[in-house]
Amino acid sequence: MIRVGIMGATGYVGAELVRILLQHPKVELKILASQNHIRCKYDSIFENFKKICEIKCVGNNLESMAKEADVIFLALPHGISSILITESILEKVKIIDLSSDFRLKSKEVYKKWYKTEHHNRDLLNKAVYGLCELKRESIKKSTLIANPGCYSTCTILCLLPLLAEGIIKENSIIIDAKSGITGAGRTLNLEFLFGECNESIKAYKITSHRHIPEIEQQLSELSGTDIIITFSPHLIPVNRGILTTCYGKLKNNFDYEEIKEIYENYYFYEYFIRLTKKGVFPETKFVKGSNYCDIGFTIEKRTGRIIIVGVIDNLIKGAAGQAVQNMNIMFDLDENMGLKTIPIFPT
Amino acid sequence: MIRVGIMGATGYVGAELVRILLQHPKVELKILASQNHIRCKYDSIFENFKKICEIKCVGNNLESMAKEADVIFLALPHGISSILITESILEKVKIIDLSSDFRLKSKEVYKKWYKTEHHNRDLLNKAVYGLCELKRESIKKSTLIANPGCYSTCTILCLLPLLAEGIIKENSIIIDAKSGITGAGRTLNLEFLFGECNESIKAYKITSHRHIPEIEQQLSELSGTDIIITFSPHLIPVNRGILTTCYGKLKNNFDYEEIKEIYENYYFYEYFIRLTKKGVFPETKFVKGSNYCDIGFTIEKRTGRIIIVGVIDNLIKGAAGQAVQNMNIMFDLDENMGLKTIPIFPT
Amino acid sequence: MIRVGIMGATGYVGAELVRILLQHPKVELKILASQNHIRCKYDSIFENFKKICEIKCVGNNLESMAKEADVIFLALPHGISSILITESILEKVKIIDLSSDFRLKSKEVYKKWYKTEHHNRDLLNKAVYGLCELKRESIKKSTLIANPGCYSTCTILCLLPLLAEGIIKENSIIIDAKSGITGAGRTLNLEFLFGECNESIKAYKITSHRHIPEIEQQLSELSGTDIIITFSPHLIPVNRGILTTCYGKLKNNFDYEEIKEIYENYYFYEYFIRLTKKGVFPETKFVKGSNYCDIGFTIEKRTGRIIIVGVIDNLIKGAAGQAVQNMNIMFDLDENMGLKTIPIFPT
Amino acid sequence: MIRVGIMGATGYVGAELVRILLQHPKVELKILASQNHIRCKYDSIFENFKKICEIKCVGNNLESMAKEADVIFLALPHGISSILITESILEKVKIIDLSSDFRLKSKEVYKKWYKTEHHNRDLLNKAVYGLCELKRESIKKSTLIANPGCYSTCTILCLLPLLAEGIIKENSIIIDAKSGITGAGRTLNLEFLFGECNESIKAYKITSHRHIPEIEQQLSELSGTDIIITFSPHLIPVNRGILTTCYGKLKNNFDYEEIKEIYENYYFYEYFIRLTKKGVFPETKFVKGSNYCDIGFTIEKRTGRIIIVGVIDNLIKGAAGQAVQNMNIMFDLDENMGLKTIPIFPT
Repeated sequence: MIRVGIMGATGYVGAELVRILLQHPKVELKILASQNHIRCKYDSIFENFKKICEIKCVGNNLESMAKEADVIFLALPHGISSILITESILEKVKIIDLSSDFRLKSKEVYKKWYKTEHHNRDLLNKAVYGLCELKRESIKKSTLIANPGCYSTCTILCLLPLLAEGIIKENSIIIDAKSGITGAGRTLNLEFLFGECNESIKAYKITSHRHIPEIEQQLSELSGTDIIITFSPHLIPVNRGILTTCYGKLKNNFDYEEIKEIYENYYFYEYFIRLTKKGVFPETKFVKGSNYCDIGFTIEKRTGRIIIVGVIDNLIKGAAGQAVQNMNIMFDLDENMGLKTIPIFPT
Repeated sequence: MIRVGIMGATGYVGAELVRILLQHPKVELKILASQNHIRCKYDSIFENFKKICEIKCVGNNLESMAKEADVIFLALPHGISSILITESILEKVKIIDLSSDFRLKSKEVYKKWYKTEHHNRDLLNKAVYGLCELKRESIKKSTLIANPGCYSTCTILCLLPLLAEGIIKENSIIIDAKSGITGAGRTLNLEFLFGECNESIKAYKITSHRHIPEIEQQLSELSGTDIIITFSPHLIPVNRGILTTCYGKLKNNFDYEEIKEIYENYYFYEYFIRLTKKGVFPETKFVKGSNYCDIGFTIEKRTGRIIIVGVIDNLIKGAAGQAVQNMNIMFDLDENMGLKTIPIFPT
Repeated sequence: MIRVGIMGATGYVGAELVRILLQHPKVELKILASQNHIRCKYDSIFENFKKICEIKCVGNNLESMAKEADVIFLALPHGISSILITESILEKVKIIDLSSDFRLKSKEVYKKWYKTEHHNRDLLNKAVYGLCELKRESIKKSTLIANPGCYSTCTILCLLPLLAEGIIKENSIIIDAKSGITGAGRTLNLEFLFGECNESIKAYKITSHRHIPEIEQQLSELSGTDIIITFSPHLIPVNRGILTTCYGKLKNNFDYEEIKEIYENYYFYEYFIRLTKKGVFPETKFVKGSNYCDIGFTIEKRTGRIIIVGVIDNLIKGAAGQAVQNMNIMFDLDENMGLKTIPIFPT
Repeated sequence: MIRVGIMGATGYVGAELVRILLQHPKVELKILASQNHIRCKYDSIFENFKKICEIKCVGNNLESMAKEADVIFLALPHGISSILITESILEKVKIIDLSSDFRLKSKEVYKKWYKTEHHNRDLLNKAVYGLCELKRESIKKSTLIANPGCYSTCTILCLLPLLAEGIIKENSIIIDAKSGITGAGRTLNLEFLFGECNESIKAYKITSHRHIPEIEQQLSELSGTDIIITFSPHLIPVNRGILTTCYGKLKNNFDYEEIKEIYENYYFYEYFIRLTKKGVFPETKFVKGSNYCDIGFTIEKRTGRIIIVGVIDNLIKGAAGQAVQNMNIMFDLDENMGLKTIPIFPT
């Protein structure tokens, strides 16, 4: 059994990790750390775990956790894990970091988007960007995984085959993303009150969202050229679900079947990626509660554009599920172990 | 492996049966019947089953299904299963009927509430009311299970210990119930359009809902006297979830701890029943996606009343989950096999 | 023109007052006070008022407001207005207090439910309980109105004719109430985050909600005997709307038409009360955005109970709308002036 | 008083017309026609009109309606009004058609997108496209108004100043639109059931939505060149509200203030258009229940793109409200008469 610790266990992503890991056949959940709930029983914080998880939360102490666990998931706010993680800890334990601290390779890019120096430049190169479908081989050998952002996961999976094949004009990419409210985490903020979110749609952080450099880094690496994207996130009054609508100009006059074949080549063996049929676009309700990413696309002859739509459950494939998928890869387990849950519809 | 057939596989309850049974370790899903989708692949109807269930639907033919299955779940509209099921079919296959056709024992009561004669009086006595926590022993020996209504399940589980102990005034019971919209099934009806349900609360079928005689039958049996209840269902704009608020006058001046002990005695060994702590009332979000029923109560000294609140996921413990729990009992499997899913929060 | 000031102008009820009063033909909105938004332009806080209300908020200073206004609405948290209001202020300005501070007549009852002494016993008797349909004549002469609670308004309007006529058993009344989330105000509290409320139903403050003594006081006064009720509020994931389901035992064997006549006698001339037809129950969507209260009922012969269902928009008839209705009465205007908005459906 | 008739009075747009027109000071609502509800009282169909509108519906007979009304609103499914309307009718009565029948000027374009010949080519040129802010002068003189589509209204108002000024690259425009469910009307369709829409996000009719040619026609006219756009609509689980996110490449290196000035020049005198401040994007909740269109934008220096976000209430500025605005213009009334309602927040 793999001994697991979670730091930041009482946020939405932390709770999702607990839920998935408790149902994982090869995992023993050892330590749940939550600075705000020290000595609280887990099921007193989240009543859905009643009679299921009575572990008492401890404080955040990575050193001591490293002694008792084989792998630690860090589901903390941004800016903390880069302070906590050290080379010596990584010698004792594998780390899967769900914050954005180790996702960007370039210190300069980091500074530009985060308006501060990176706390831990030494480990930047050690960290592997844990988009499983893209980095599987590196993940296997890594001890430090930077688990991708929710928007980034959905966006990159939509665009990966097109950029790897170099068939899309590099400067033409626009991503219009829509996310449920849990993407904001379990944080006390006026704008996330029910009365403020419900029955409304809004855009936010257009041109400035911090998943932009993360997506650009991966797309640039894939295509071998510098990719600059426009990315506009929107808040939608649902609990879970991300839908990304991606626009790009095709370099040549492809037809649907040719592109379809490219997607199938890239994703045929991918358990968690499902391609919709021609004329069908994915809907978030059909992936909710699961680690799937559904992708569909169409070609607009009139404008020469391709439009790709992808959906994920932001808390699962966009966070906790992919983190567990990374763990499975790192420990040489079946990649879908503990992650085969069928999407729950209606939710 | 238990070979399973489902008739009415393309309603919400049918889809929930498919989802649960596909994840059940001892089940082989053999036949999905749906009169409206003959020859359609299941995942073309419900896209959440993409790459998971490509079984082709067949027409409703109970005779032929009986030859290939060990148990058949009937998730049909009311009034059909009582026509289809015969003694000779029951010799070949076990049946779990999710409609209301076999829930009432009395032909007279049936006629009064359904305004028609029962189609199949002969089998009425053969059928066992499949509220697992109450009828476990009879279920074991039965070949025909009348799976309880969603409201009935939640209500009876709230009141069972109190009526079995005879500590509540028989004519004092009022149940005010709230249900999510999927309780109405996947039926095309103006009143279930998003624009009509969303952002609204309404009562319906007050004094006339057909779960009333079903609840009264069980409560009367439990208490040994005729129980007449007031039952008022309400429609709430959520997908899943039932919450029942039950009111009754206590015969004596009990305090909280005494009643708590009664509940614990009745439910201590029940895997799927969870009692909340003093001062905490259950919420539907904490049982969603699971087969749990959470129950909490308080005593109002000023009025001598006890108020009990229960919650279930209407499609699981209120329908498909309990049906599978019944199957587990009938086939002598662990009662919670395939049903241990942790409630998913936030949903 | 009536010069109006609002203290607590930046909560949900305050904003609703602003919206209604700006559209009132006889009102000049003079002062908006909000301790947290001093010097902020109102439309920078609530963007719906863009190009409509650019008044700058001032601090809470009742003394100085009293000099510039004919009437002041206090939409503050409970416990403040009883400190602020004095006899000398009431000589200068009329006050409509939307908090609970002046709703209870009895100091003892107040202490029992609020666990503290009342701050201002002297004015308790001066204040008139502003349920317009019940207290119209007293309101006319009053300078201090205690605007009723949202639940209380809906509940009392449902029960008023029955208790005034004395046809319902005094100790038999149970009210099961359902409210949208804005009833909790615009307060930063984990339990009101979208992710916590959405897709869930819960009961709260059963047996202990502070509208209980308020309802009991009015029903007792109406019936001439001490009425003790059971009242159970529930939180429903909609923005606006309260639905109360009221249960009581009839003293005699009335039929529907007799009770209907009683309601019609009491409410025939009431502009804001609408009775549904036999067999039809009110829905919150049909009163949203308006000052109406819709009421329907049925009689259950089997149990001798009457079940009455009432709905209001909690922010309008349950708060700001009724407050303006009170103002209209106090200033001898048409009672429905500025309040004739047709309910907006679909909302 | 203007005598008004409405054909198709019992859809969502019809009901919204009734609601607005009943509150319009210069309108007498004479005839409500609804083929499915002949002889039904209007408030028996929509209970929000109880005690407010008891007009009995009549059948659809444009000839006879034309004799009794000064203006008729047609809120019918597409393809009907082009059959009903004739030159002789237009001599007797003004018509505001809310369907798409008269929006496209070109018979060829119509045929391409609607896959059928237009029923009434003679009147195509007579009809004025009723986007009030754009066509005010033509509307004044017209007797036949083609009221714009909901998406088209929001999109064109976002882009109008930029295209009129010619500062955006013609082939660079992408519109990603999000709409609430009432946009689909009150039609019985499985995909609009609550259980199918709630808690889900989906794209639909990408590259094929019929508002595309309508938008292109207006934008091309504005810019004097052929504009071809990409337009992707999405369904969002809210009742009301459209948000359009518009992307385009700027021809030159403008900064924010320059573009802001352009918008202000175009919209300074427009009552219903509100520009948000720098850094603020509009939200649908702040226009709900009103005829406003809120617009905000940002410039992305990195990509040379401008991103414009617009919001409207799809049933008001996107349909019934704009139709009444057209009526006001045609009858030389204040353009905002009966349309000054303040957006209702929280809704």
